[in-house]
Amino acid sequence: MTQDLAPELPDELAAELIATAHALADTARKAVLPLFRSNELATENKRTEGFDPVTRADRAAERAMRECLAERRPLDGIMGEEFGATEGRSGLTWVLDPIDGTRAFLSGTPTWGVLIAVNGAAGPILGVIDQPYTGERWIGGLGQAQLTGPHGDRTLVARSSRPLCEAILFSTFPEVGSVEERSAFERVASGAQLTRYGTDCYAYGLLAAGQIDLVIEAGLHNYDVCAPIAVIEAAGGIVTNWDGGPAHEGGRVLAAANPEIHAEALARLRG
Amino acid sequence: MTQDLAPELPDELAAELIATAHALADTARKAVLPLFRSNELATENKRTEGFDPVTRADRAAERAMRECLAERRPLDGIMGEEFGATEGRSGLTWVLDPIDGTRAFLSGTPTWGVLIAVNGAAGPILGVIDQPYTGERWIGGLGQAQLTGPHGDRTLVARSSRPLCEAILFSTFPEVGSVEERSAFERVASGAQLTRYGTDCYAYGLLAAGQIDLVIEAGLHNYDVCAPIAVIEAAGGIVTNWDGGPAHEGGRVLAAANPEIHAEALARLRG
Repeated sequence: MTQDLAPELPDELAAELIATAHALADTARKAVLPLFRSNELATENKRTEGFDPVTRADRAAERAMRECLAERRPLDGIMGEEFGATEGRSGLTWVLDPIDGTRAFLSGTPTWGVLIAVNGAAGPILGVIDQPYTGERWIGGLGQAQLTGPHGDRTLVARSSRPLCEAILFSTFPEVGSVEERSAFERVASGAQLTRYGTDCYAYGLLAAGQIDLVIEAGLHNYDVCAPIAVIEAAGGIVTNWDGGPAHEGGRVLAAANPEIHAEALARLRG
Repeated sequence: MTQDLAPELPDELAAELIATAHALADTARKAVLPLFRSNELATENKRTEGFDPVTRADRAAERAMRECLAERRPLDGIMGEEFGATEGRSGLTWVLDPIDGTRAFLSGTPTWGVLIAVNGAAGPILGVIDQPYTGERWIGGLGQAQLTGPHGDRTLVARSSRPLCEAILFSTFPEVGSVEERSAFERVASGAQLTRYGTDCYAYGLLAAGQIDLVIEAGLHNYDVCAPIAVIEAAGGIVTNWDGGPAHEGGRVLAAANPEIHAEALARLRG
């Protein structure tokens, strides 16, 4: 989708964006890892109702990434989960979620991640999903499609087509979203071979790595989904909203390994 | 619980059991890791209804562990998930679950584990939870209480007491078990700060490492729970069934970080 719409970037600029994305991920790892599974985590609630923990790690990582961008890419815009929007003048915007999956982070589960995307006018052109604890890093877009980690490197290729009854579906919360959204999700889940919960952004990484077929979520922010879109599209997968339109603004998101399973899931979501 | 009932073992025997447990975990890692996230996984259904995948990895790991035990501990009994019971003559039985969390394994999520326990007459006296992909290994019992891994070693100490409304609760499946079991679980979950799903045996490791407060499951086999019991008890936690009795035969299991949260969860499970 967005790949076709992305303007052709000069090789030098593409290389600089890729190097900067890695530098940001390295920086975030350093900020975050000492706080993961520490017992000193101070959490606070951003909203008066509901449970939306913000950890010191979250803020420290975004701050460190913003400092890195101020030095390397001062003309680019920034949209960050913790500190909001900074206008740019280059036409490129870095979309940062320092810790996607703060609940996983708080619980000690290594399925949270640092999300880093570069958006052009039409959406994400480069994305990184980084898991500091396992040492895994997914990168996709601008010619990249790779998972690197302690067990070696691997080219990202999403799963080939298979019927829904043989497909694996992931979502972060069993409730998914509203009652209506949960019902739509259930129409897909009831036909799938296996439905799993609780993986946050890690599920998008699994989809890009060819392990699972579908991720369906609701109520996402743009910073939750921009990096996964670039990574999944680079692996040959498809990410849209539940109407088949662009997903990079967030909301209801359907990520699929191939066009066939995307069509089957979309039809069931529509009811 | 079982610690008090475990016969005092001579130091030499204890050391031999600990070394053998590590050897088994090493052996299982070697058998399993090449198959994790490979696309060659052959799965089959053990039961005609429901989805209970058995991977080649599962069988290869148990076979390798049985060979290791035949050499090192030929007089001990073995109870394995894949190949059943082998009578012993030493009074000790190795309880093996080569891959706890086959659904996680199939999906590529690193929350499955290799479970290894040594049972005496009264239950588990030593347990290992090993996660080959992340390189984490929990060991508890016979004087051990440790998590080792790529980010260093850590003594296992379960969380101190806090009210349920500040506690983190885990279970593998949102449906938990029967409708009645789900209702009982919901009575606990509705009072907890946070409920997370999808972590299989990894949740017991998080509890032993002081990250979470409660794990509640139903329909477990003995090989699902013996190793977690030894690890959690070594960390100061408590594992019982939903009636407060011994849990090492499986069934409905309540694992808690401390006596206070155990009592609060038990009261709500009973309704």
